[in-house]
Amino acid sequence: MSNLLPSQSGFRFAIAATHKAARSGILQTAHGDMQTPAFMAVGTAGTVKAMTSDAVRATGTECVLGNTYHLMLRPTAERIAELGGLHRFMDWPGPILTDSGGFQIMSLSGLRELDADGVTFRSHVDGSQHRLTPARCMEIQRLLDSTITMVLDECTPFPSTWEVAERSMELSMRWAALCREAFEQRAGYALFGIVQGSVFQDLRDRSASTLRGIGFDGYAIGGLAVGEGQEAMLHTLENTVCRLPQEAPRYLMGVGTPDDIMEAVRRGIDMFDCVMPTRAGRTARAFTRTGIHNLRNARFGTDPAPLDAACSCPACRRHSRAYLHHLFRADEMLGPVLLTWHNLTYYQDLMAGLRNSIREGALDLYIETVRAGWSNEGGRHV
Amino acid sequence: MSNLLPSQSGFRFAIAATHKAARSGILQTAHGDMQTPAFMAVGTAGTVKAMTSDAVRATGTECVLGNTYHLMLRPTAERIAELGGLHRFMDWPGPILTDSGGFQIMSLSGLRELDADGVTFRSHVDGSQHRLTPARCMEIQRLLDSTITMVLDECTPFPSTWEVAERSMELSMRWAALCREAFEQRAGYALFGIVQGSVFQDLRDRSASTLRGIGFDGYAIGGLAVGEGQEAMLHTLENTVCRLPQEAPRYLMGVGTPDDIMEAVRRGIDMFDCVMPTRAGRTARAFTRTGIHNLRNARFGTDPAPLDAACSCPACRRHSRAYLHHLFRADEMLGPVLLTWHNLTYYQDLMAGLRNSIREGALDLYIETVRAGWSNEGGRHV
Repeated sequence: MSNLLPSQSGFRFAIAATHKAARSGILQTAHGDMQTPAFMAVGTAGTVKAMTSDAVRATGTECVLGNTYHLMLRPTAERIAELGGLHRFMDWPGPILTDSGGFQIMSLSGLRELDADGVTFRSHVDGSQHRLTPARCMEIQRLLDSTITMVLDECTPFPSTWEVAERSMELSMRWAALCREAFEQRAGYALFGIVQGSVFQDLRDRSASTLRGIGFDGYAIGGLAVGEGQEAMLHTLENTVCRLPQEAPRYLMGVGTPDDIMEAVRRGIDMFDCVMPTRAGRTARAFTRTGIHNLRNARFGTDPAPLDAACSCPACRRHSRAYLHHLFRADEMLGPVLLTWHNLTYYQDLMAGLRNSIREGALDLYIETVRAGWSNEGGRHV
Repeated sequence: MSNLLPSQSGFRFAIAATHKAARSGILQTAHGDMQTPAFMAVGTAGTVKAMTSDAVRATGTECVLGNTYHLMLRPTAERIAELGGLHRFMDWPGPILTDSGGFQIMSLSGLRELDADGVTFRSHVDGSQHRLTPARCMEIQRLLDSTITMVLDECTPFPSTWEVAERSMELSMRWAALCREAFEQRAGYALFGIVQGSVFQDLRDRSASTLRGIGFDGYAIGGLAVGEGQEAMLHTLENTVCRLPQEAPRYLMGVGTPDDIMEAVRRGIDMFDCVMPTRAGRTARAFTRTGIHNLRNARFGTDPAPLDAACSCPACRRHSRAYLHHLFRADEMLGPVLLTWHNLTYYQDLMAGLRNSIREGALDLYIETVRAGWSNEGGRHV
C-alpha cells in the first residue's frame, strides 16, 4: 500500500505498509529522507555526545534532534545562523528536528515565570535572563534552520489534577495557534503540533481536536514518560493516536526504552527520540540482544566475547567485553565513545527490524523474539 | 641509497635516504612496517585517549606506544596475554612499542624503593605493592606481546650532580645487560637499549659504548626533555647520536614539540613519542600550520574558517573554528575527540613532510618553511 500525501509545504510522508495500527514509511524533507518508524539521536548542544557526525551516520541514524534551550543560550541561534545554520555547524546535512525549549526551561533553568504570552527564565549557564514566546520560539528554530520545528508548549507536570492539566493544555493550545501563525513556511520544512492533557482522556481528545483544527505537518504526543508508568502511557497513547490524522507523521516525544518503543510502534507511532542510548553509553550500560548489561561488572573483566555478537558497530566487531570493561574501569574516554556508538546502533537495528517486520506483516512475532533474547545471559529486560 | 640491514632477530631497519645527519627509512617488524622518522602515538592504558583505533590509523599513525606501568597494574599483563595480547586487546595489529615502566614508577607511584636488582613500589590505582626487576620487566612486555620492548632503566632526575648521574647511569647499564639476557628473541620483535647520563658528555659516551657492547636492535636516548632546555637537549643529542651505530634505529624518548622533533630529525633521530598532541587536544590547544592556538579563546567563537585549511582531518574538513570553540565552551566530549584527531594528524603530516624533504635533499628549507608558517595569524611558535 502506497499513500504519498504531498502537503502544501512540500514536506511529504508516504506510508508504505501498515500492520494493524502500526505503519512503516518514508518522511521526505528538504534535507533528505527518513525511514519510519524512526529513532532520532539526541544532539543537545549541536553534538550527539561523544560521537563524530560520521560515527552517528554509521549507526544508521537519519535524523538528529537539537535542543533549542541549549542552543539559544550557547552559542545562540543568531550565531549559528551567521555560521550557516545547525546543519553546517554540526556537519549534519540530513534532517534535524528541534524541540521548542519549553521542556528544558522547566527542568534546567533557574527562576522562571510563565504567563499567557510566554516564559521568562534565567540561563543555567550564566544566570542571564531570557524570554521565550511562541513567535520568538519560531524565529529561533528558523535561525537554526531546523527541518522539523516544534511548537512551544508547557509540559504538564505529573501527577496533575484535571484542573491543572486543563489549564496547562489550553495554554499550550493557545501557543500552538500563535506558533502556526508565526511559522515561516518553506518547502520541505515542517511544523509539528504537540498533544497535551496528561493522562486525562477528555483533555487529550480536546487537545488533538484543537491541533487538527489548526493544522500541522505532523503531530507529537507530549507529556508522557514522565512517571506515569508504561501501562498508563500506552493506554493514553492508544486513545490519543486514534484521534490524529492517519496521513500525518506521529512523534512520541522523549520515549524511551526499547520495550516502550516497540509497544508504541505497535500503536501507530512513527518517530521517537530519547537520551537513553547515549546517556547509558556514557555510564557503561549497554543495550544488547541479550538485555541490558553494566560493563563495569567484574564478570566482564575476563570475557573475550564481543558485547553483542550480532552487532556491526566497532565496539562489537573490534573489541572484547573485557576491553570495554577495562576502558570504563580506567575512566578512558573511549569507553563512552564506543558504548554510545554501540547503543545507538542497537536502537537503529531495532528500528530497522520493526520496519521490516511491519512490511512483512510479522510485527508481533518480531517483538516476541526481541523480548525472548533479553532473558539470555543474565541481561536485564529493557 | 639503500641500506637494508637484517639483524639476527628478523627485525630490519632499512635507511632509504640520508641528508647530512638526518635519515629516512623503513622499520620492518613482525607487525608491519613503520616509515621513519616516525611519531608514535601514546596509548597509555591500551587506548590513544579519545580515539578509536580506526581514527588513530586515519591520522597516518603506524605505531603506538603502551605504558607498561599502567597496563601491569590494570588490567595486568597476565590478563592481556589471556585475551590474546595488546594488539588484539586494543585493536592495533600494527607495531606497538612498550616502555619499561621505570619512568612512571618514578613519576606516578607512591612509596618506592630502588635497589641494585629492581624497584618496589605502590600502585597509584589501589595502593597495592609491586616489584619490577629487569627479568620481570621483560616478562611483562612479552605477555603484552610488545613489538619493541624497552629495557628497564632509571630516568635520572634533572638536575643531578655528575656523581648522582653516574651512579644512576651505571645502574641502568647493569639492568640493560640483565634485560638483554632475559629477553626472549622472536622473529620481527626487538629490544632497545636506553642511553642515560644526564647532560654529561663523558657519561653519555660511556653509556652508549656499554650498550653497543651488549648489542641491541635499536638505541633510545632517555633522560632528555626533563627540564634542561632545548639548547642543552640538542647539544647532548648531537654528541650522543654520533656514538650510536649508524645502521640501527634511534629513538628519542618523550620528545616533543614540533620544533624539538624537527631539530632532532636533523641530528639523526628516527623515532619519537610524546603525549603533547593528545594531551593538548584534550585541553583545547591546537597545533597548526599557523602555530599553536587555544580554541577556548573568544576570537574563535565567530570564526567560520577551518582550524587548519591544509589539514585533512575531520575537525578541519567538516567543521569551523567556531564549532570547535563551542564544543570546548560547552564541555562536550567531541571537542577533545576532534582536536586529538587533528593534533595527531598535524604531527603525522609533519613527519611525512620531514621524510619527503630528507628524500629530496631539502630538509633545511622544509624546516624553515614550517617555522615561517607559525608566525601567521597570531599563532604561538611551537
